[in-house]
Amino acid sequence: MRTTWRLVIEYDGRAFSGFQRQAGPRTVQETLEEALSRFFGGERIIVHGSGRTDAGVHALGQVISFRAETPREAHKVRLAMNTMLPRDLSCIEAAVAPEYFHARKSARGKKYRYVVLARADRSPFHVGRAWYIRHPVDWARVEETLALLRGTHDFAGFRSSGCENPRTVRSIERAEHLVRGDEHHLEFEGGGFLRYQVRIMSGTAIDVGLGRLRIEDVREALETGKRAKAGRTAPPDGLYLVEVRYPEAAMRLEADGDAAGPSEEEPDDED
Amino acid sequence: MRTTWRLVIEYDGRAFSGFQRQAGPRTVQETLEEALSRFFGGERIIVHGSGRTDAGVHALGQVISFRAETPREAHKVRLAMNTMLPRDLSCIEAAVAPEYFHARKSARGKKYRYVVLARADRSPFHVGRAWYIRHPVDWARVEETLALLRGTHDFAGFRSSGCENPRTVRSIERAEHLVRGDEHHLEFEGGGFLRYQVRIMSGTAIDVGLGRLRIEDVREALETGKRAKAGRTAPPDGLYLVEVRYPEAAMRLEADGDAAGPSEEEPDDED
Repeated sequence: MRTTWRLVIEYDGRAFSGFQRQAGPRTVQETLEEALSRFFGGERIIVHGSGRTDAGVHALGQVISFRAETPREAHKVRLAMNTMLPRDLSCIEAAVAPEYFHARKSARGKKYRYVVLARADRSPFHVGRAWYIRHPVDWARVEETLALLRGTHDFAGFRSSGCENPRTVRSIERAEHLVRGDEHHLEFEGGGFLRYQVRIMSGTAIDVGLGRLRIEDVREALETGKRAKAGRTAPPDGLYLVEVRYPEAAMRLEADGDAAGPSEEEPDDED
Repeated sequence: MRTTWRLVIEYDGRAFSGFQRQAGPRTVQETLEEALSRFFGGERIIVHGSGRTDAGVHALGQVISFRAETPREAHKVRLAMNTMLPRDLSCIEAAVAPEYFHARKSARGKKYRYVVLARADRSPFHVGRAWYIRHPVDWARVEETLALLRGTHDFAGFRSSGCENPRTVRSIERAEHLVRGDEHHLEFEGGGFLRYQVRIMSGTAIDVGLGRLRIEDVREALETGKRAKAGRTAPPDGLYLVEVRYPEAAMRLEADGDAAGPSEEEPDDED
């Protein structure tokens, strides 16, 4: 009898070469699989994340799922993980999930935060944790750009050149600018995002705020799908995966499999 | 003609063996002196801090002073420092000061923040930046303890065993508990602090909040000067030097030397 587990994890992305396991460099997936395998009696554990995050990208609420044969008490998994995992990765929730639950396939939406540090001098407390912008930003223009990005658009011009997904229409439900002292947060919520989409949307909004790009260019990028019309890809340092949304049923142990099973349409992985 | 300079600096204390220069390990003072010496044409520069900070202690507003022969434009010093200094140390202000200005001797008060992270799990984003407390804290009791510490007391029981200053009476003008999400800030302002005093006051307040210490013990520590009656020395990780206060005249270029010269009473250095 295999049990499906759902874990919510946090990580400081600076010392990880991204989420996805790869030969050689340290990744979140591999670090988790090793710790889980040790805790689940040496069983081989395969971890699925709600999506990949690229090297240097952080998570405040990444969700992972995996299956294990070895029985373990739910409340002990979280505590054990926080003893076994390295300091830049922690587990803030662990629960048994419905059998069909899959962190990526069951996901219905995500929330990202892009943190910009806007002040005269660089900050020792934000190294690798924010995009430092020295020049004055016109935040009203940033907000105009975010308003333009909200809604359903073809985001073909707002993705990594390596992304070959044929479906590039996405819906941005929320795109907001929040001020937190010296930090400016650009928050995005939507059903799914293309690769680099949040970083390109953030870079574009900031470029408009800096006067490097006109709002008309952004409109053209949306209309024509031309990557060259959008702004820079903001660095990974400022990006945080804040939350992953699931249908309520997928979170309950006794769930209705039909209503909350894996989506036909698999959302793309965002960095 | 030598010029006296006043700089405000920030640092992440994790990779420094404290402020004060010592043979071998990396210190804030030495790092500053090397960069300043290069910028001031190779001149030997001696930096004075408003006080030492111990290994692992952070600063959001440490003040330093030094004298230099080589003429330099004030607005270029800050920019040059932020190009030359390592990423965990930055300069947020640089100005010519009255000739007699001395970062430690002219200081009239300081503000410290002690950051406690209180949540179920350790956080990857607070490693070395806060004191992580897993167990539930009774914050009303923490506040009672802070109220007891406010005012003028003999703090002989609240200092490092190595501290031999014969004057142990200090005035705490402000001791407050502020909530910032998962972070709890204990903020202290006063004319001067004994070595480890802020960390022992913070450890004591938290120990009372955890039920490890009674408020009567704290009263006894204040009355008898017995270090054993006070609580733990909180780890350096959570301590931030926020601000150093000077008489207004000491900040002006054309100051009245008599009114704002170095204090007879030199405040002690805090960790």
